Amino acid sequence: MSGRVGDLFGADAARLDETITERLAGFRSSTSRFCEEHVAGQHQASAMPAGGMPAEEYIEYLFRQVVPSAVRTHRSRFIGHMTSALPDFLVPLGRVITALNQNVVKIETSNGFTHFERQALAMMHRLVYGRDERFYAAHTQDPDSSLGMMVSGGTLGNLAALWCARNHRFAAQKGFAGVEAEGLAATLQHFGFRRAVIIGSSLMHYSMRKAADILGIGERNLIRVPATRESRIDVDRLADQIERCRRDDSCVLALVGIAGTTETGAVDPLGEMADLATAYGTHLHVDAAWGGPVLFSEKHRGLLAGIERADSVVIDGHKQLYLPMGLGVVVLRNPQMAKAIEKTADYIIRAGSSDLGRRTLEGSRPATAVYLHSALHIIGQRGYEALVDGGIARCRFMAAEIRRRDEFELLAEPQLNILVYRYVPAALRSRAAAGLLTARDNVAINELNVRLQDRQRQEGDGFVSRTVLANTRYGAEVPIVSLRSVLANPLTTQADICDVLDEQVRLSLALDVSETRLSPFDEHEVYEAVEALEEIDQVAPVAAVRCRSQ
Amino acid sequence: MSGRVGDLFGADAARLDETITERLAGFRSSTSRFCEEHVAGQHQASAMPAGGMPAEEYIEYLFRQVVPSAVRTHRSRFIGHMTSALPDFLVPLGRVITALNQNVVKIETSNGFTHFERQALAMMHRLVYGRDERFYAAHTQDPDSSLGMMVSGGTLGNLAALWCARNHRFAAQKGFAGVEAEGLAATLQHFGFRRAVIIGSSLMHYSMRKAADILGIGERNLIRVPATRESRIDVDRLADQIERCRRDDSCVLALVGIAGTTETGAVDPLGEMADLATAYGTHLHVDAAWGGPVLFSEKHRGLLAGIERADSVVIDGHKQLYLPMGLGVVVLRNPQMAKAIEKTADYIIRAGSSDLGRRTLEGSRPATAVYLHSALHIIGQRGYEALVDGGIARCRFMAAEIRRRDEFELLAEPQLNILVYRYVPAALRSRAAAGLLTARDNVAINELNVRLQDRQRQEGDGFVSRTVLANTRYGAEVPIVSLRSVLANPLTTQADICDVLDEQVRLSLALDVSETRLSPFDEHEVYEAVEALEEIDQVAPVAAVRCRSQ
Repeated sequence: MSGRVGDLFGADAARLDETITERLAGFRSSTSRFCEEHVAGQHQASAMPAGGMPAEEYIEYLFRQVVPSAVRTHRSRFIGHMTSALPDFLVPLGRVITALNQNVVKIETSNGFTHFERQALAMMHRLVYGRDERFYAAHTQDPDSSLGMMVSGGTLGNLAALWCARNHRFAAQKGFAGVEAEGLAATLQHFGFRRAVIIGSSLMHYSMRKAADILGIGERNLIRVPATRESRIDVDRLADQIERCRRDDSCVLALVGIAGTTETGAVDPLGEMADLATAYGTHLHVDAAWGGPVLFSEKHRGLLAGIERADSVVIDGHKQLYLPMGLGVVVLRNPQMAKAIEKTADYIIRAGSSDLGRRTLEGSRPATAVYLHSALHIIGQRGYEALVDGGIARCRFMAAEIRRRDEFELLAEPQLNILVYRYVPAALRSRAAAGLLTARDNVAINELNVRLQDRQRQEGDGFVSRTVLANTRYGAEVPIVSLRSVLANPLTTQADICDVLDEQVRLSLALDVSETRLSPFDEHEVYEAVEALEEIDQVAPVAAVRCRSQ
Repeated sequence: MSGRVGDLFGADAARLDETITERLAGFRSSTSRFCEEHVAGQHQASAMPAGGMPAEEYIEYLFRQVVPSAVRTHRSRFIGHMTSALPDFLVPLGRVITALNQNVVKIETSNGFTHFERQALAMMHRLVYGRDERFYAAHTQDPDSSLGMMVSGGTLGNLAALWCARNHRFAAQKGFAGVEAEGLAATLQHFGFRRAVIIGSSLMHYSMRKAADILGIGERNLIRVPATRESRIDVDRLADQIERCRRDDSCVLALVGIAGTTETGAVDPLGEMADLATAYGTHLHVDAAWGGPVLFSEKHRGLLAGIERADSVVIDGHKQLYLPMGLGVVVLRNPQMAKAIEKTADYIIRAGSSDLGRRTLEGSRPATAVYLHSALHIIGQRGYEALVDGGIARCRFMAAEIRRRDEFELLAEPQLNILVYRYVPAALRSRAAAGLLTARDNVAINELNVRLQDRQRQEGDGFVSRTVLANTRYGAEVPIVSLRSVLANPLTTQADICDVLDEQVRLSLALDVSETRLSPFDEHEVYEAVEALEEIDQVAPVAAVRCRSQ
């Protein structure tokens, strides 16, 4: 092709690369400037530029109008989200993924990257299940086995795992073509079930609700068992619930354990859940999107004991594997389980072919396995262990600092590296210490913490997120607004942590005096305060719902 | 963090970048070397290196052991897949996406990239629906409207669109909490339906089967109406089918039109389908994963007339928008429709927030909108028009070349830029010309073409894919193995096309004499020949199924 458009293909991008290198260096050392209204106004035009524009000019626009607003997820005092600084080698390796543009759905469009991805999945499988050499010799590269699958993130991972569970439970048999062919309504009718259910704690991530919706199960049939004060599922009540389901013709498709809740990083008693799953012959899925990498740590992996008995486990790459956004992994205990979702291999993709797309949720996919494979090799077992141990140590340091300071109240003992706490204004500290806070007091403290977190985000140097907790010492009726710190960034120092807390004290003092209403109690105020929150990391504050419907 | 692992974060990657630049330059000019067994053997180890390895050493390994096998999707004679050379500016821009590591699920982790993505979606919406300025002024940046959503590819796009259709059809109303809460079984019972169905042509992409399975509808309830000889849905039979569904208490959730079938690039009569959808009050979804960008072309956009009446349309970024793997777009005619999949906004994500994650299938997502937004601006309307027109012109040139050569038979008149044809051995050419080929002859020709495509892939300089066609002049009983050429790469010249065909003639002559069995007809042979195929681009050769079950 001649002319301008043809010139955009197959040439050398060295000059653009140089520009980008220069601009990115500037970005790293700058701070975010963001006015939502302004940026929205700048991105209003929907007509396409007819003639196109030079790439240089576009990059100029991008770094002038959009990039300055970008959230500095790499900063050491950005300790509010599940996003951290990334290892440096990932940006150069990302270029390889884009430049090679392989499509790993089929071996014909990816060749060796198929086996490369399988190897990375086997390593993740081994991390979770730790089977012997013979097992991996047999399954790692056998096209007929699936040790897992890559997905674009934890939401799809949870969906894919529960899809496997549903189809495996209702597989084809004599006189029944399987749920994938018959659909869920005909399937339940065939087996005489009133409904199919999934059971987990009230702290399940909201992606479970998406999955229950999409799979045709219905959110009403995603049963939430209360969590203990330690944010772990109440196993006795779980057992009761399973029994109740058996009696009322509900088919339990899966139990869902959580290894690292979004709110506080709590881990369910996975061993006891596995006992129940075994006893009732039910699929056990573990959402270890956040906590999975704790398995790298000799010291802390015991927290996840029992995970090796799960049928499926989801681990996010872009969380504690420190990979770029857009990468999750599902591993499956039984290498044959994914056959339950295989799209009739005999005529879509030849049975026995090496095509990874035979058993994945997505179709065409990039070779993002390069990120996972490279990090597992370059960071290695001990590197990940150091990252995990470092995060937990940092979290304990911060918890101690909070205990040491009168201004703060620790809201839960951290299990991993997520910390929930809040600021308590001077006027209420003695009542707080004496355990005498009223609901009215808590509404006022909630309001103050909402405002504090907002102000630090907008004006401060540090950043923590906030969430709403249902199971604090104040009971489920009083949802507590909590500051939430995620200690995952290896660049965060003890000084950073102290600075973030000092800044909060400084900002709160100002708010304390001038703005906080310690106003008369209004019965709707609790709910209004909760509704006014913008949820961070999509935490589901169940209490808010529970309170409102009661 | 001190020590080795800490050193991997927050430093400068300039040296690694240089190495990668050098290696990628070498890659572009080399050819693929791939021995599956060898590469599989190299990727057998599943133990993680305990101590990690230097990034330089890893890159050395990657470029020595994996990259050499990579499929050269950028080559001008690689005209078999829906993957082409990419515009150069995308690799540098990919670095921006990785380095900034924004998470567009929430505005708090993406800031201005939220509005930036909304603008790109509005441009795509305008391409399809062409609404007026007032419409876009109202909806482009209104957090309460969704002009569409980004997905990791067409498979998820089709799933997301049908998820919207299902939930919109069975939305909450008095006495009914909506399918998302109730589940599909209770929903059908509530409305007195026996089943829910989706109807499209027999040439629907296999991702529709995935969607029907996942959504709990069942593949059996994905009804495939026969296509005409031109690979377009038979509208009369479609109307009959809808009527039949009404009579037997089947709820028609959606009609699915195809704009560019995977096999031959055919386009369904979208206007007539829209008439039916309107008449019956049914959702019309158009899978324009391949053909959508034809809308950029003044000359050819009429082929897709009626698409602007569809309720949802999927267009893949990594196909004819020339973006890297892993990006698709769904656009929705009604900016409120995505509310049907919103995860109860009042407590997961605050109602009225700008968070894109309120209404997407995926959760955490990278800002791949940078690829889409940049290409729409840099390539522009006329650039994409030139790419589309160029591909169609190239395809017509190749069709003319094939007609000109005795050795080949054109199997369908191309509608866009995909061409299906086959090689006919000398001994059968006169019978072919006279229209006297028997089923036995076709089996032999099938076998020869399978072998020819294999050999060219392994030894040749050119590359085309192959598929199996059910609706050729030989009728549905005789599935025809077809060579398939996708003319999307703007670097492909007329000389490249002639060279690919010349090479096929050369390779076939050798096969013709020494290896092809023009053997006695065996009634299973047709099916065996079909089963022996490795499907390219996941084409669903329905004929194969149909034949076997008859």
